[in-house]
Amino acid sequence: MKRSELATRHCSIARAGAQIVDAWTFVILREVFLANRRFDGLRAQSGMSPRSLSLRLDKLVEHGVIERRVYSSKPERFEYFATAKGLALWPAVIALKQWGDDWAGPWGRAGVPLKLEHKGRGHPLRATMVCQTCGEPVDARSVHAHVSPAMAREREVMAQAE
Amino acid sequence: MKRSELATRHCSIARAGAQIVDAWTFVILREVFLANRRFDGLRAQSGMSPRSLSLRLDKLVEHGVIERRVYSSKPERFEYFATAKGLALWPAVIALKQWGDDWAGPWGRAGVPLKLEHKGRGHPLRATMVCQTCGEPVDARSVHAHVSPAMAREREVMAQAE
Repeated sequence: MKRSELATRHCSIARAGAQIVDAWTFVILREVFLANRRFDGLRAQSGMSPRSLSLRLDKLVEHGVIERRVYSSKPERFEYFATAKGLALWPAVIALKQWGDDWAGPWGRAGVPLKLEHKGRGHPLRATMVCQTCGEPVDARSVHAHVSPAMAREREVMAQAE
Repeated sequence: MKRSELATRHCSIARAGAQIVDAWTFVILREVFLANRRFDGLRAQSGMSPRSLSLRLDKLVEHGVIERRVYSSKPERFEYFATAKGLALWPAVIALKQWGDDWAGPWGRAGVPLKLEHKGRGHPLRATMVCQTCGEPVDARSVHAHVSPAMAREREVMAQAE
């Protein structure tokens, strides 16, 4: 199976992956969330080649994760903003940031690269996941997964294709 | 800059990306979290070629995200389990799953592929992010980001490398 086929699997993670998951995409989203919105700035801070950056920006625009807004008409220049769909990726970006803080160091005396402050509250922000229904903290051991009939059928087909 | 250089950037997201972010990795983690632990099962459900799967499993083992445990000695066969570092990725996997549920459909009458139940509580689980300090729900608009001096220096260098 090709990576592009992930886009049609009956799996939210596979489809999400097909739309956005690669390391560069997360770096671009990091920059947009830091309000670094212009091509040259994105190129400088990502270290990507102009061509790679351009392709990935196009893909993210195509999937509706970011949008272009004109800030100069002669020459025509754009800034990139997260859409509602892009803002909805914030928990995934933050979960990955915090995982990197915890597991991708050592950061040494410099400490973690980016400290989050809870805006308007004046304290550091560490995000944690809770159950929306009961408010309890949740982790990998808190869930039972129920595969839907449609996903179960797809899994059966995949298993038999062996 | 090459993708491999992301591993040494002073950025948790870049380093996390260098270790784990690609769509296939998330699909493998999904399967391990669903207790599909053996090579043949992982191959069937991911649809990856044996070579691609093998390379990615090796990389995840090397980074300490999953570990091999022998379940048969003749022939030698392994099962894959999430380590503490791998279990710590659960929030990122779930954030991506929920984003896919919300934004990567339409799922049609079949509904979302996988429903989560809060184990021992008997209600559906939707995970939401809150501030660990004050317990309030947080999103992209809840934070100020403070770039550390080390990250600021690196950004300066990247900007000047233009």
